[in-house]
Amino acid sequence: MTFAIHGLAVSRGIAIGRAVVVASSRMEVVHYFISPDQVDAEVARARNARNAVIEELRRLQEEMPKDAPGELDALLEVHLMLLQDQALAEAIRNWISERLYNAEWALTTQLEIISRQFDEMDDEYLRERKADLEQVVERILRHMKGAPSPIAAPAAAARANAGQPAMELDGATETPLVLVAQDLSPADMLQFKSKVFAGFITAVGGKTSHTAIVARSMDIPAVVGARAASQLIRQDDWVIIDGNEGVVIVDPTPIILAEYGFRQRQNELERERLSRLRFTPSLTMDGQKVELLANVEQPSDGAAAVRAGAVGVGLFRTEFLFMGRSGNLPGEEEQYRAYREIIDGMQGMPVTIRTLDVGADKPLDKAQPKDYYLNPALGLRAIRWSLADPAMFRTQLRAILRAAAHGQVKLLFPMLAHRSEIEQTLAQLRQAQAELDARGISYGPVKLGAMIEIPAAALTVRSFLKYFDFLSIGTNDLIQYTLAIDRADEAVAHLYDPMHPAVLRLVAEVIEASNAAGKEICVCGEMAGDIGMTRLLLGLGLRSFSMHPAQILAVKQEVLRADADKLAPWAHAVMDSDSPAEMLAP
Amino acid sequence: MTFAIHGLAVSRGIAIGRAVVVASSRMEVVHYFISPDQVDAEVARARNARNAVIEELRRLQEEMPKDAPGELDALLEVHLMLLQDQALAEAIRNWISERLYNAEWALTTQLEIISRQFDEMDDEYLRERKADLEQVVERILRHMKGAPSPIAAPAAAARANAGQPAMELDGATETPLVLVAQDLSPADMLQFKSKVFAGFITAVGGKTSHTAIVARSMDIPAVVGARAASQLIRQDDWVIIDGNEGVVIVDPTPIILAEYGFRQRQNELERERLSRLRFTPSLTMDGQKVELLANVEQPSDGAAAVRAGAVGVGLFRTEFLFMGRSGNLPGEEEQYRAYREIIDGMQGMPVTIRTLDVGADKPLDKAQPKDYYLNPALGLRAIRWSLADPAMFRTQLRAILRAAAHGQVKLLFPMLAHRSEIEQTLAQLRQAQAELDARGISYGPVKLGAMIEIPAAALTVRSFLKYFDFLSIGTNDLIQYTLAIDRADEAVAHLYDPMHPAVLRLVAEVIEASNAAGKEICVCGEMAGDIGMTRLLLGLGLRSFSMHPAQILAVKQEVLRADADKLAPWAHAVMDSDSPAEMLAP
Repeated sequence: MTFAIHGLAVSRGIAIGRAVVVASSRMEVVHYFISPDQVDAEVARARNARNAVIEELRRLQEEMPKDAPGELDALLEVHLMLLQDQALAEAIRNWISERLYNAEWALTTQLEIISRQFDEMDDEYLRERKADLEQVVERILRHMKGAPSPIAAPAAAARANAGQPAMELDGATETPLVLVAQDLSPADMLQFKSKVFAGFITAVGGKTSHTAIVARSMDIPAVVGARAASQLIRQDDWVIIDGNEGVVIVDPTPIILAEYGFRQRQNELERERLSRLRFTPSLTMDGQKVELLANVEQPSDGAAAVRAGAVGVGLFRTEFLFMGRSGNLPGEEEQYRAYREIIDGMQGMPVTIRTLDVGADKPLDKAQPKDYYLNPALGLRAIRWSLADPAMFRTQLRAILRAAAHGQVKLLFPMLAHRSEIEQTLAQLRQAQAELDARGISYGPVKLGAMIEIPAAALTVRSFLKYFDFLSIGTNDLIQYTLAIDRADEAVAHLYDPMHPAVLRLVAEVIEASNAAGKEICVCGEMAGDIGMTRLLLGLGLRSFSMHPAQILAVKQEVLRADADKLAPWAHAVMDSDSPAEMLAP
Repeated sequence: MTFAIHGLAVSRGIAIGRAVVVASSRMEVVHYFISPDQVDAEVARARNARNAVIEELRRLQEEMPKDAPGELDALLEVHLMLLQDQALAEAIRNWISERLYNAEWALTTQLEIISRQFDEMDDEYLRERKADLEQVVERILRHMKGAPSPIAAPAAAARANAGQPAMELDGATETPLVLVAQDLSPADMLQFKSKVFAGFITAVGGKTSHTAIVARSMDIPAVVGARAASQLIRQDDWVIIDGNEGVVIVDPTPIILAEYGFRQRQNELERERLSRLRFTPSLTMDGQKVELLANVEQPSDGAAAVRAGAVGVGLFRTEFLFMGRSGNLPGEEEQYRAYREIIDGMQGMPVTIRTLDVGADKPLDKAQPKDYYLNPALGLRAIRWSLADPAMFRTQLRAILRAAAHGQVKLLFPMLAHRSEIEQTLAQLRQAQAELDARGISYGPVKLGAMIEIPAAALTVRSFLKYFDFLSIGTNDLIQYTLAIDRADEAVAHLYDPMHPAVLRLVAEVIEASNAAGKEICVCGEMAGDIGMTRLLLGLGLRSFSMHPAQILAVKQEVLRADADKLAPWAHAVMDSDSPAEMLAP
């Protein structure tokens, strides 16, 4: 039966395909497809992990401390029953052999199906019993982490990237798939960047949740905040995602399917038209040069940035190197090779490398309990995290300094707010240089920059300009803190407003102070890739925009149509207005 | 064996007493003492709740759906074993009869002791099994909620307030007690306001966590962020709290005890000296009048405010009415009576009533899962919460309007940041007035004010001044958002800095704009009661401070010593400095 779920439209376009429902899990779980000849090995991997857990629990039973509560043994017995359940083993084998899911994915998919049985129970207490099942599954997953799949996940992603058919399920090649999840982790989104999926649907999240940002940057339709989507949509349901209206249509009739197929083809045509701007220089009508840079997050993304017409990388996120590796952080050599790859890929154009921006809100590893931090966005993250672990921080700095010998490198520090943090950061940099000197290793010069993404930084921009060669405004976080709105919380997402006069005032002040000081200033948050904001930012004096490669051509079209000098007085009037949004219509 | 635990010094003074360790629980649990003649009834209440849960689980077993996983029955069986454990029943009875704990407290205390046994196990999986015990206990607690204790908790608190001996444990009257907890909920702190405890120690929390604020306002020594305190300190240990140095000394030697006893008496003398300023008018040396107001949170706090020399209430928090009552919010009549009580108590002096400031970060009921909100401080709270439930909001507004007929009332709205929110708020107020008109009920005039506690509000203060008669700066939240630092997160608490130049710039701008517009401006955050900040705020033009009654006399002493005119140029130099903290020394 056809039905619709309403959510937030966060990435435009239409996608039509079959649903792949991803279960959420307390652990970081990798999701990827295996090839048909790997099925037996993958099934064996799942079985071995399960057997190992059975062994462990038996051993725990035998070695139980004398003073342990008596009921503990009985609890272990029940968990052993769960583990040895034949129906569970059978179901996991099916997900692997028929869907080509990796073992972890198969396990969590089946967990989710059983969880639904629990969720449908009337009594809250009975519903909560599913925690036992979750814990058993988690223990199996943890075992698999130690014994990774014969095919590494990145290899599978690379294969899909290389344009080969991403998957052959039951021989039904080329059936588009749409991903349905409660929420998607940054790590999942990295995996799914490989265009395996035609669209994304998540039950939670706001306009600037991670899922929304990545989907938009990949130019793939997405609807987030589609409450209960992951409960209402079943595996393999046909689904239409209308990313323009924020609607998901499940199990559509043939007439509805035909209508959306037509709209999909229209979108394609518009995209082709834009692609002709690729080699046009980025100049305003009055001849002012505007730098359009790329935000990238993988060393191999350089090619895509160059193809999209970027004249450099304005933001290279280094998180990908660290994700899911809390016990085994990348060393100097590994990082150096990654930075070299993006620098080489940009063929002499400048590359801005931002030091690690992880922490309480973007944990390296989901295994860390979520509720440990009361307000992760206000906690130990980004530069705070790096300064709390100076050895790790200097390892990254040394790798970047060495890579800088091979190209134009700009070094960017996230989340600075206090003068003491700036001074500690620069001291760490000097120490990293001294360490390389002592080892006799050569390195290159770097320009130094700071992200302006905390209100305190924007309000004290003049002291930042004393220390740094360039600044980069991270509008997403700046808006979040200035308005005290979590951009991923759908209860308040409607109040997350880039056009709030306070936000515009801070952005304008930072641009103006930087221009007055003759320092480079760039915007690298969402605002830079939003064509509704291009004219306003040009009018406020911005000449450097950094965004996902997929957005560059649309922004370039806006630049080509703009008269920067004439926009200035209008932009300042917008900024001084009580309700800037009303003045934005051109 | 004597040992020390280091934490943050958040409330000055020395306390010496025996430890009462409060277990944390996922549920909102009330803690209070019963009288000896209530022991039998309380033991029976605990037993009845346990029996009811046993009954329920048996019924669940019988009515199990046919398609339920087979292991579920076995799990229930284990939980029934836990419930019928004689040792557990015996221990709970002991806590009630020997310590005079209410039944809920007894239950969670015993849970905590058993939890420690689990925590000491080597295997993480075994440790996690304590969740089963927790869930069983939670179910019992939920039953007790339906059948409250014969003595209501507020009555017990009132008894202690009235100066009667707070407790007689085993006849050992007057043994001072210090409270040790992982963390304390706002509801607990309300209970414990009654001076039952001589000091507070919590394992988590920063300088401006709720525990710290309440302890400081009660003038009771406290150390927070004393990691592992609730694990290392056992029930009944002798403990010294040094609230000046942030140190907790457990099981001290007689020599150490004598030394701290001496320091304690010195503190007492200083306090007596200050009390002589009670009736001195609050004027600076150059004759400028400075208004010193009280922050209060209970209708009965008026007397204490008047005694402390307050000339009005600058902030009456209304949360107390709503705490722990998510299913049964207070009606218009109940609220009206509460507001009348504080208005009458202030004997004609002005009373500023702030509408509800609860929400994602201060939930009405702990039963709500903590990790539901990713960043509660950036979520649905305060006015956002009120506007999301207009019927509840107007009920509060009508009660305040009616109470305003009996005194000088100022109405204050928390967390406003958007013009649309201001307009919605004022529309709700008009509708509340219309509803009273329609019912023919009379009400009084109110002055309208807004809290300035979000950077966006401070940055657009001029549009706030168009709508409101007065403004009140909530420095705690303003600092939190401006610096993107969660004041309760000890990993970053050292970066929470009231003297950050960005913070001072916002505070100064709001004061200046308000004075220029001829509107009243007050500071009601922690900054107002901090004697280290008094001269600076006077210099920036502030003439109205609102703080906990216990802080008024110390601030008055600072006012009496200050020359406001001479402070102005100095204050502006501090504000323009890159490192204001260094200039603060007088």
